[in-house]
Amino acid sequence: MAVEYIAGYKLSQTTRFISDSKYSIAFSIFAGGNILLVLSSAILCAIFAPAAAGSGIPEVKAYLNGIDAPNILAPTTFIVKVLGSIGAVAGGLAVGKEGPLVHTGSCIASLLSQGGSKRYGLTWQWLRYFKNDRDRRDLVTCGAAAGVSAAFRAPVGGVLFALEEAASWWRSSLLWRAFFTSAIVAVTLRVALSSCKGDNCGVFGTGGLIMFDMGVISTETGLLELVPVIILGTSGGLLGAFYTFLSGKVLKTYANWHAKYGLFGKLFQAFLVALITSVLIFGLPWLGACTACPTGITHECPSNGLSGKYKQFTCQSGYYNDLASLLLNTNDNVIRNLFSTNTEGLYHYSSLAILLCSSFFLALITYGTAIPSGLFIPVIIIGAAYGRLVGWFVRSTTQLQTFDEGIYAYLGAASLLGGSMRMTVSVCVILLELTNNLLTLPPTMLVLLISKTLGDLFNHSVYDQILHIKGLPFLVEKPEPYMKHLTVMDVCSSPPMTLSAIERLGNIVEVLKSTDHNGFPVLEHSSEVPKLHGLILRSHLLVLLQKRESDYNSADFAKPGSGKSRRIEDIQLQTEQMNEYVDLRPYTNASPYTVVDNMSLAKAFSMFRQLGLRHLCVVSTTPKASPISGILTRHDFMPEHVLGLYPHLRANKWNRLHTKSSVSDVFVS
Amino acid sequence: MAVEYIAGYKLSQTTRFISDSKYSIAFSIFAGGNILLVLSSAILCAIFAPAAAGSGIPEVKAYLNGIDAPNILAPTTFIVKVLGSIGAVAGGLAVGKEGPLVHTGSCIASLLSQGGSKRYGLTWQWLRYFKNDRDRRDLVTCGAAAGVSAAFRAPVGGVLFALEEAASWWRSSLLWRAFFTSAIVAVTLRVALSSCKGDNCGVFGTGGLIMFDMGVISTETGLLELVPVIILGTSGGLLGAFYTFLSGKVLKTYANWHAKYGLFGKLFQAFLVALITSVLIFGLPWLGACTACPTGITHECPSNGLSGKYKQFTCQSGYYNDLASLLLNTNDNVIRNLFSTNTEGLYHYSSLAILLCSSFFLALITYGTAIPSGLFIPVIIIGAAYGRLVGWFVRSTTQLQTFDEGIYAYLGAASLLGGSMRMTVSVCVILLELTNNLLTLPPTMLVLLISKTLGDLFNHSVYDQILHIKGLPFLVEKPEPYMKHLTVMDVCSSPPMTLSAIERLGNIVEVLKSTDHNGFPVLEHSSEVPKLHGLILRSHLLVLLQKRESDYNSADFAKPGSGKSRRIEDIQLQTEQMNEYVDLRPYTNASPYTVVDNMSLAKAFSMFRQLGLRHLCVVSTTPKASPISGILTRHDFMPEHVLGLYPHLRANKWNRLHTKSSVSDVFVS
Repeated sequence: MAVEYIAGYKLSQTTRFISDSKYSIAFSIFAGGNILLVLSSAILCAIFAPAAAGSGIPEVKAYLNGIDAPNILAPTTFIVKVLGSIGAVAGGLAVGKEGPLVHTGSCIASLLSQGGSKRYGLTWQWLRYFKNDRDRRDLVTCGAAAGVSAAFRAPVGGVLFALEEAASWWRSSLLWRAFFTSAIVAVTLRVALSSCKGDNCGVFGTGGLIMFDMGVISTETGLLELVPVIILGTSGGLLGAFYTFLSGKVLKTYANWHAKYGLFGKLFQAFLVALITSVLIFGLPWLGACTACPTGITHECPSNGLSGKYKQFTCQSGYYNDLASLLLNTNDNVIRNLFSTNTEGLYHYSSLAILLCSSFFLALITYGTAIPSGLFIPVIIIGAAYGRLVGWFVRSTTQLQTFDEGIYAYLGAASLLGGSMRMTVSVCVILLELTNNLLTLPPTMLVLLISKTLGDLFNHSVYDQILHIKGLPFLVEKPEPYMKHLTVMDVCSSPPMTLSAIERLGNIVEVLKSTDHNGFPVLEHSSEVPKLHGLILRSHLLVLLQKRESDYNSADFAKPGSGKSRRIEDIQLQTEQMNEYVDLRPYTNASPYTVVDNMSLAKAFSMFRQLGLRHLCVVSTTPKASPISGILTRHDFMPEHVLGLYPHLRANKWNRLHTKSSVSDVFVS
Repeated sequence: MAVEYIAGYKLSQTTRFISDSKYSIAFSIFAGGNILLVLSSAILCAIFAPAAAGSGIPEVKAYLNGIDAPNILAPTTFIVKVLGSIGAVAGGLAVGKEGPLVHTGSCIASLLSQGGSKRYGLTWQWLRYFKNDRDRRDLVTCGAAAGVSAAFRAPVGGVLFALEEAASWWRSSLLWRAFFTSAIVAVTLRVALSSCKGDNCGVFGTGGLIMFDMGVISTETGLLELVPVIILGTSGGLLGAFYTFLSGKVLKTYANWHAKYGLFGKLFQAFLVALITSVLIFGLPWLGACTACPTGITHECPSNGLSGKYKQFTCQSGYYNDLASLLLNTNDNVIRNLFSTNTEGLYHYSSLAILLCSSFFLALITYGTAIPSGLFIPVIIIGAAYGRLVGWFVRSTTQLQTFDEGIYAYLGAASLLGGSMRMTVSVCVILLELTNNLLTLPPTMLVLLISKTLGDLFNHSVYDQILHIKGLPFLVEKPEPYMKHLTVMDVCSSPPMTLSAIERLGNIVEVLKSTDHNGFPVLEHSSEVPKLHGLILRSHLLVLLQKRESDYNSADFAKPGSGKSRRIEDIQLQTEQMNEYVDLRPYTNASPYTVVDNMSLAKAFSMFRQLGLRHLCVVSTTPKASPISGILTRHDFMPEHVLGLYPHLRANKWNRLHTKSSVSDVFVS
């Protein structure tokens, strides 16, 4: 909540000086404050935890897909994310704290799942039970859910977000765990808020459990409402796709800059963005005209404080500058203003147009800089602004009175969220919980439907795009059609390096040094034809090499914290030790998942993906010298890899095999 | 909506005669109407479509788990379900129309997915693309979602219900499809309702999109509220578990009766239930005292009409009988009355106690009779009644003013739903959409959390119990712990019957006649050791036998409608045809899923379950005469079967292998 305090203080100072028409001082305070905050956050990110930059949702998504990218959920990342996000949001940038909060939640969860952090001297013994992939992943999913629940005060929305966007595998027990977490968050929030009545917790208290309450507002307008709904849905989908496209381009260029200029580049960029933002936000309001305060309103008008719909800015008393109250304000208040109902014509369409363009531009240039930056809030602001514009447009062209302008803003936000993030149920519920406006549910669903469908025609969701640009090997849900034309042997790296059931330590060391594979088949040479005993992991072999005791307990084999892992280079063995023998069978997974060597790649893919495997052994149906003909890993299923081997498949949409697979015996899930 | 009309007419008639103190006529009309309606529904069910009896949700759940029980989703079932449910609900029984609506929705979906019904002369060519398991199952899931959306006017709740309770496999594309369906339902409802303003659609219009609107009611009570919340959660969990236990006993006894007395038994039972219900509902209100109408209320008091909180019954004008308005009313109105807020002491606790006992008793004896009967509504009524009781209890014992009585009723309903059906997110959202009461979300979640957890300590959810009693081979999500101690070869029926790649028609007929297996391995005898070519399905073999043309198109192999399937007995072949040969390879699934013969049963189980297989081939790691050592089917994984083979595992909780499996290479999902 520090965010609101800093931002609030800065803004109130600025506005005060403006009202005293000491513009230079006001601007220097404003811009200076912003730049200072943003730079500090950028420094933290760039130096201590580069992984903390950006939204964090794609990273969490990647981790839950099975990608153990280093430091994604490390303690340092966590600390930097929190501080950095405070700096960025308070710095007035067009960023939200929602994505970062999701990342933070996941970081905490992962910390717990590692039994605390050795490095920071916090460890809990009882937490070691989480030291396996499944529970750790569940915990991280719950963390993400908690993040959204806290950020939007939307517990159910949080659960759904975790399941729809974050998690790659759903289990009803996972749903149950996520629900449990969110319930706790909800109750905590509720108690905190009820003790925060009034303003004794600053901005935190405002809005209570519902952040942007739109109150009860009749929206029963029959069939006519479909007109604006369809307009909003369509344009939202197009705008969302366009935004995604542009931000993709920006991200690539930024990535290149960072690669070229390194630390300095990152900092300078952050400085530049902060400067531009400050100039725009401070300068643009001068374009807004001064309007006379409407009569008979409850709100203070004109106001110089934090919130308030009617900012005085440079106008004399009795007048307000609508553009100022849309720009020179905290993000939350801007949204609150845009969503506010029964405010026909409160904001002039030109002001809305300016807000739309500026926030669109700022959102584009901001994401990708080395600071924690959430995407939800900017998208909601852009969407709301243009929703109101559409409302004005519809009302002025066709004379039909359908929705309130607030509802237009709300639906606009929904459409842009659907068009850029391509979430449906979760966005629906989050918006519902944000605004407590159940009656608008049907139009909201329709808008989301249209915008998502339209957006999907053009490109992937903004998060998937970030995943792709970051080059994380994300395993999508469905196999590519061309995979039906290949068998597993066409792609898999054969033959694999194998170990014997009773193996010389020296050999193990050599094998480990000679390759970076993580799984090795263990063969038994008892019969004349070797028999596959199972699969042993590199990490377990390293444990065996490191501590050559007679007995190990399962704790030794527990998965180390994310990012950290043992390395063969760290292990020194004397020559006589090299000649010791070890029986690998007790430490071998004796029942690995297998496929026959003529299995179609598509089916192997869905098996690999749905079972969430790391290794998939390929066994031969015909007796051979070696019982195992290969090992499939995530890498082998990546389209880049497959199309690299078979470029001609890129275009090939030949589908005889489609029909064949539809005659398959599988009750595919 | 016919339901409300009939029920409404009957009730208004009855109440009219009562107010004229012509009690005998009133009762004969009331009881007569009920018995007539219920019997007609029972006759329909018992004679034409036994599958239409009961809630239907367990059946849908079973179908989505991969169980093709006959007639579950047949057109006849559909028609009977609709008519029968009208009869049952209008007959004043303690049943809801929600479960049946879910079933109905799924039936429609399945009808579409079969490309219409040949028997009823409705067929659509373009729908044949759904003729495969996956799309058909998705469509049925969407149907279930639509059912809930329509029943509760809760679109999002519908989606979540379909995913949390109905579906066994989740895919984000499935989520998307379900959302699409619900959105359409929502918009349709909205338009229908906005054209139904006022009462020009009878009871349908009332409540608008929100059936039991509780309006905005402050519930900010700080920490103190945890006291009633915990009481409600605990008792709800216990009561729910108790209810589940009893209804299980009742179901078993009923099943025996039906088996013993057949059709007559079913009808007599229905008659009896209808009679008892009528007697109770008509007689009990006499126990209620006449209370003077409160002053300064908007509602008509006393009223004789359909709805209304203040039923006159036998009281003189100016007085109302609170018990009558809780019993002698349509289910929806009863709930509306119980949920109504700011009604401190409107219903005397004795009346509530009577309502609680009677509805609990009626709900128990009703479910299991041969009529379509939903569980949601009765459970909500019981829960609400006892919630209000708890509210009265808390207020009278501890003097703390926490919630409104309406909120107590609401939370009570939530707790009982959680305690009996064990759903969390979906119940949460459904209740939210039913009552438009977002502020109570945190306590609701907490209540659900407690009640579900408590209930799970005692028994399975009421739906799973019904599944079990019906003896449907439902495949649960997690393998039983003892499965870790077995390998696949311990349970699987080896050796399987195999076919050659080029096979004599005569042999095929013999094999099909000699066994009821549905999948047969196809072996190639080209090399000296036979090679596994793949797996062919009985159904496809039957197609091959039936139409012995040179070429087949994939449509021939499309899955026939649920319930219907070709049988070997129907196929007659001449002797010379018997000696023809057919090349099975083009029709064989050349890449079946396989496991090695030393694979642990637990891992095979999760593979079978997560991939949603029907057959799983067991291949041997050591070269043998036959490359395939067995085929695993759903039957082999059923605890009944496994424990039948290894009874000593029943108690055995020995878990050395637990640790071992935690050292496995699998990034288990």
